[in-house]
Amino acid sequence: MNLDYIIPNDWSILEEGFDPKHVKASESIFSIGNGAMGQRANFEERYSGPTFQGSYIAGVYYPDKTRVGWWKNGYPEYFAKVLNAPNWIGIDVFINDEALDLYKCKKVEHFKRELNMKEGWLSRYFIATLQNDTKVEVSVKRFLSLDMDELGAINYSIKPLNSNATITYRPYIDSGITNEDTNWDDKFWDTLSVSHQDNQAFIQAKTMKTDFYTCTFMQSQVFVNDGLVAIEPDTSSDSNSVSFGYTHNVKEGESYSIHKFGGYTVDRNHDKYELVTAAKSVLNKAVKEGFNTLLENQKTAWSKIWEMADITIDGDVKAQQGIRFNIFQLNQTYLGKDARLNIGPKGFTGEKYGGSTYWDTEAYCIPFYMATKDQSVARNLLEYRYNHLEKAIENAEKLGFSNGAALYPMVTMNGEECHNEWEITFEEIHRNGAIAFAIFNYHRYTGDYSYIPEKGLEVLIGIARFWHQRATFSRDKNKYVILGVTGPNEYENNVNNNWYTNYIAQWCINYALENINTVENQYATDYTRIMNKAKLSKAEMQEWKTVADGMYFPYSEEKEVYLQQDGFLDKELITVADLEKSQRPINQKWSWDRILRSPYIKQADTLQGFYFFEDHFTTEELERHFDFYEPFTVHESSLSPCVHSIQAAKLNRMDQAYTFYLRTSRLDLDDYNHEVHEGLHITSMAGTWMSIVEGFGGMRIKEGKLSFEPRIPEQWNAYSFKVNFRHQILKVNVCKGHTHFELEGDQDLHIVVNGEDVTISPNNLVTV
Amino acid sequence: MNLDYIIPNDWSILEEGFDPKHVKASESIFSIGNGAMGQRANFEERYSGPTFQGSYIAGVYYPDKTRVGWWKNGYPEYFAKVLNAPNWIGIDVFINDEALDLYKCKKVEHFKRELNMKEGWLSRYFIATLQNDTKVEVSVKRFLSLDMDELGAINYSIKPLNSNATITYRPYIDSGITNEDTNWDDKFWDTLSVSHQDNQAFIQAKTMKTDFYTCTFMQSQVFVNDGLVAIEPDTSSDSNSVSFGYTHNVKEGESYSIHKFGGYTVDRNHDKYELVTAAKSVLNKAVKEGFNTLLENQKTAWSKIWEMADITIDGDVKAQQGIRFNIFQLNQTYLGKDARLNIGPKGFTGEKYGGSTYWDTEAYCIPFYMATKDQSVARNLLEYRYNHLEKAIENAEKLGFSNGAALYPMVTMNGEECHNEWEITFEEIHRNGAIAFAIFNYHRYTGDYSYIPEKGLEVLIGIARFWHQRATFSRDKNKYVILGVTGPNEYENNVNNNWYTNYIAQWCINYALENINTVENQYATDYTRIMNKAKLSKAEMQEWKTVADGMYFPYSEEKEVYLQQDGFLDKELITVADLEKSQRPINQKWSWDRILRSPYIKQADTLQGFYFFEDHFTTEELERHFDFYEPFTVHESSLSPCVHSIQAAKLNRMDQAYTFYLRTSRLDLDDYNHEVHEGLHITSMAGTWMSIVEGFGGMRIKEGKLSFEPRIPEQWNAYSFKVNFRHQILKVNVCKGHTHFELEGDQDLHIVVNGEDVTISPNNLVTV
Repeated sequence: MNLDYIIPNDWSILEEGFDPKHVKASESIFSIGNGAMGQRANFEERYSGPTFQGSYIAGVYYPDKTRVGWWKNGYPEYFAKVLNAPNWIGIDVFINDEALDLYKCKKVEHFKRELNMKEGWLSRYFIATLQNDTKVEVSVKRFLSLDMDELGAINYSIKPLNSNATITYRPYIDSGITNEDTNWDDKFWDTLSVSHQDNQAFIQAKTMKTDFYTCTFMQSQVFVNDGLVAIEPDTSSDSNSVSFGYTHNVKEGESYSIHKFGGYTVDRNHDKYELVTAAKSVLNKAVKEGFNTLLENQKTAWSKIWEMADITIDGDVKAQQGIRFNIFQLNQTYLGKDARLNIGPKGFTGEKYGGSTYWDTEAYCIPFYMATKDQSVARNLLEYRYNHLEKAIENAEKLGFSNGAALYPMVTMNGEECHNEWEITFEEIHRNGAIAFAIFNYHRYTGDYSYIPEKGLEVLIGIARFWHQRATFSRDKNKYVILGVTGPNEYENNVNNNWYTNYIAQWCINYALENINTVENQYATDYTRIMNKAKLSKAEMQEWKTVADGMYFPYSEEKEVYLQQDGFLDKELITVADLEKSQRPINQKWSWDRILRSPYIKQADTLQGFYFFEDHFTTEELERHFDFYEPFTVHESSLSPCVHSIQAAKLNRMDQAYTFYLRTSRLDLDDYNHEVHEGLHITSMAGTWMSIVEGFGGMRIKEGKLSFEPRIPEQWNAYSFKVNFRHQILKVNVCKGHTHFELEGDQDLHIVVNGEDVTISPNNLVTV
Repeated sequence: MNLDYIIPNDWSILEEGFDPKHVKASESIFSIGNGAMGQRANFEERYSGPTFQGSYIAGVYYPDKTRVGWWKNGYPEYFAKVLNAPNWIGIDVFINDEALDLYKCKKVEHFKRELNMKEGWLSRYFIATLQNDTKVEVSVKRFLSLDMDELGAINYSIKPLNSNATITYRPYIDSGITNEDTNWDDKFWDTLSVSHQDNQAFIQAKTMKTDFYTCTFMQSQVFVNDGLVAIEPDTSSDSNSVSFGYTHNVKEGESYSIHKFGGYTVDRNHDKYELVTAAKSVLNKAVKEGFNTLLENQKTAWSKIWEMADITIDGDVKAQQGIRFNIFQLNQTYLGKDARLNIGPKGFTGEKYGGSTYWDTEAYCIPFYMATKDQSVARNLLEYRYNHLEKAIENAEKLGFSNGAALYPMVTMNGEECHNEWEITFEEIHRNGAIAFAIFNYHRYTGDYSYIPEKGLEVLIGIARFWHQRATFSRDKNKYVILGVTGPNEYENNVNNNWYTNYIAQWCINYALENINTVENQYATDYTRIMNKAKLSKAEMQEWKTVADGMYFPYSEEKEVYLQQDGFLDKELITVADLEKSQRPINQKWSWDRILRSPYIKQADTLQGFYFFEDHFTTEELERHFDFYEPFTVHESSLSPCVHSIQAAKLNRMDQAYTFYLRTSRLDLDDYNHEVHEGLHITSMAGTWMSIVEGFGGMRIKEGKLSFEPRIPEQWNAYSFKVNFRHQILKVNVCKGHTHFELEGDQDLHIVVNGEDVTISPNNLVTV
């Protein structure tokens, strides 16, 4: 653990005391979002200390020109950047003509920051003594509305404590912003118009190249002691900003507040010529409702999310805070309303990685959204890939594949590849497997087969074709091999026969063939349509099968384990425990070649296969592989601890499972990887959810039934979670020695608990 | 072959007819240099068509900030760029107020360009009709003086053919130049002063960051019908240029000429405050001698070089032109006078690759310089690496090595690594082997052991330590392995147990141990000094030996060949002959992953080992390996055909040897690799020399004696070459059926011809 200043609390993230060294980390941790937009927890007033300003709009990106040292054929022309959007939260504050700036105050006392996850708001409180000796008490509350997802609201309030004070609020909007992360210092935004009328202001701006049209807007009201006052603003504007000055002579002990409403309207949701009109309508509604009503609505909206998504942990505040933080951030990032959007690894909390969609969505996020939302959300996530199938085929063509073979991009915003390290882009092809697996997983969980004949099968065919073409025949081994890949463990590059990749390749082909057969027999119309489109012959399918049946898997007879890749046993097999602490994290201490030739594993690789395909192996096999690989695993990927927590729980190693659970759930709160200032690890947060539900809860789907093998860490008294399974909601409450099940719905649910069939009737507590 | 416009000629490179599409290629091919500076064959007058302007000063580079997509620990901060230096050749020409510009003329007739290799000059001739209908005959001759290597001279002459004409020559110098190749569009030069006096002009400029101080200078004289005329120049200057205008009303049929002298003085050779003084002294001497005398001196200087270095081929003009072009360009690039300089892969003909020193120097260039110059030149090249030993140790430390292990950089200007692809910089470690091999080769050829106790042994110890630490023990194989490397064949990355690397690693350790022993026994003082410095114990040496003795070499029992690396036989072994032509060159047609998983070999890899260590293997073994690997070799490295030509000759496959010879010798003249416009392949030109001397001539050193197995391609009547062997010069003239040997020197030379001992007495033609 690298940082330890977040105060444990069941429902809130709390920071007390002002430390400029924590500002960037807290800007990440206290980020807020509503699925449509999000922002780092930057201060409203100017701050001259180290800060990382970021406000992001879902789906708005910039295709930054790729930067590489040495160009390789097939690299994408651009790297999609998450774009810092125009600022609407800014409020310059002047107190007796001195700008309020926490970095420059004489004294800052009683500083407290709270991210209230239950109600969905962020607040700040402090007493500051300015250089001019004016002492003020400041309270700020801010939220991004879930109900009106183009709107955010701020209540900023100041009370002079030691004298009367002339206070000016100068709320502004500003499109003259920059990105932290840019390859060529390009300008990303083109401001089209700046306008204002009465107390409303609007900036229309479009992104360069991608031409996303946006309108950033604001309107404010000021209050003295909670009474609305009409102050004619002093308006100032230039080519990319507008501000309104509201000045008032405030008496000592009196409070002077501003309610600022702001946000974005975007052309994904409106005609690009109607963005100002749409913005006016949002502002008019917001002002009419007022800050307090909007805040009440916010609490209600979040309570609905928590009603379904909450996980309680009794007896371990840090663990409780961790899981709620993870669930909260996931819901802030993606709510599943729009199939055009996806789940970026940093959500709305930073710019790193760029792009929005990695295999993380399919491998880690879908189970969470499937179980805590309506199943249409998971289906939206699947359709996102279906909609990108043509581009995945084009992407494969660039790399020399043909005949409809599809290679989904490693990183994308719009279906095109936008990453450019050859060892990742060209070689980390296992991502294709996760995309097929998600289709299988969706059907397994929801029982909804209709997606496959309607859309999924075309994706499965494109993926099967890719694997068929990508495998080559080794005369030496008399088997099909897959050469030159990077597996999930990115601390190996260009290896041959990565077991995970070969295994999922074989599975993809077999799964595609199985579904072609099912669709042929049961969905004749879809079958004809798909076959006409894909021009797939029986002969080609036979070729697929030859490859799948002849696939090679590296195996050690001596160790009785599958080998992560050819030659793994040639390494110096020194475990992480025997590696000096000073050498870690190896990705910060070692040169790349040294990492590559070491045995150290960044995240589950062979074990990822055992996670996906658990029922293909015995528990003894899982144990043998876990014991072989985990000791070499450095968990320097945020996606690593969750899988290991689930498998440790399955193996009944509760201490280990608990340690991994803490690491995954508090990864950002405690900054395990020394990088929280860059943003949060959003996608791995779904892994945290899995480590409770699938790990401790032991939830699986077996033959269409929910199955549980509940376990509980020694440190906890009880924990509970809910899953939405095929339109019924089951609450599971695991205590020491027994588990309660409670069902919302209208018909019995047959589940399996520790191998025994159990029937749960609606609204009837069942204890096992 | 991609281009076919160079006219075959024994001694000259000739182009006839003006084609703007050939301008960039010709700018490369007709490049001139004198070891201290060099330049592309840019026109003196302005040219508005596509052109690549380049003038380069030996040892003057810029550490351009590295550009990579994704930073890896251990990457160098900078990439050394060969710098385009201030222009001194420029002469703006105005004819009746119209600028002469070949791209804009109404008509260009009788255009002819000649690079006279025998005499070392470049000329141009053409008749141009301008837009204003003035028709002029233009003759230009230019050379860079070998005798005065800071000086170049131009004779530019115009004769109006259809009317009188007012002609202005405006010679200039200009430091406001840019590089073709820059990562961040940085400015590379800082102009310090611009001055002129009478007809002389000077620009002092220094490179940014590296602070190389230079003075660019010029002085001109004008002539009418060869009679010097005194014209007061019209001078113009700004912050980074000076020009002098010389205008004359020239009668129809009269010739108006300018002799321009220019060049660079640099702080490698002068005090940085004395550069203008030094430049004046060069100019005064040049003007005093005059263009014609300087040109005569140039012919004499080149005749001395050719006296020793020439290779004649009778009966095959293209082959003759090819080898002379190669020898000429090598001598233009590096003359061996300065141990601070080295041989850049593009010499002074382009910017690509940056840096000056690759393993090319040791693996390809040293034999040429050793045999055609005094042996002190080769020793200078060895000392270059000795002088960089400390930096090679630092470089190894950055990658996690210790205790004096040295890893020489892949690319360098000053001993620091300046390349930044992990798969090259961190993994292409075989370069260390070539550096040790060059020491062995120097001793083998020259018989001069003194270099080893004086300097070489320290290098050998640093290199042996590296290999000892870089190899790891595989329990699985019960052998030492070298994991994660890139061999000479750069179409494989991060492979395990590259045979060439493992073999040369073992050899390096054994060779170091052998020499430690020799120095201990025969050079006690040096031994003590070196051991004190290196702190090398017997125990450490024993550890080296354990690694060398236990080294693993991948081998196929079935094919009876060493495998290029582990797993090579898993590839789809489709030969190049069976690969569609449309797919080649694969480095332009295929994505990197596809290249990597293919069996295709960029240049000799296993065979490079058979070349270096030919006497470790039988001819049958060589043949088996040649037959196995050559069919998969695409020769997309300039360094590939020469080695294969030598080995094909050794195997008596003369047709193949001849084809490879043409490919290596005319690589740039015929633009085999579609890239001559970027510059010439200088280092591989030494390989061309080897393919005649070692290939057809079969020259080897065996037990301290020169040995020959002369062969001759069917297409040739005879060929001859000379070698400087241990201070004696042997001329070898191979005819069909017999070979003549002639010796300059004062004592008998015992050689071996086709396995038989032969004694050659001085100045006595011996025919075998």
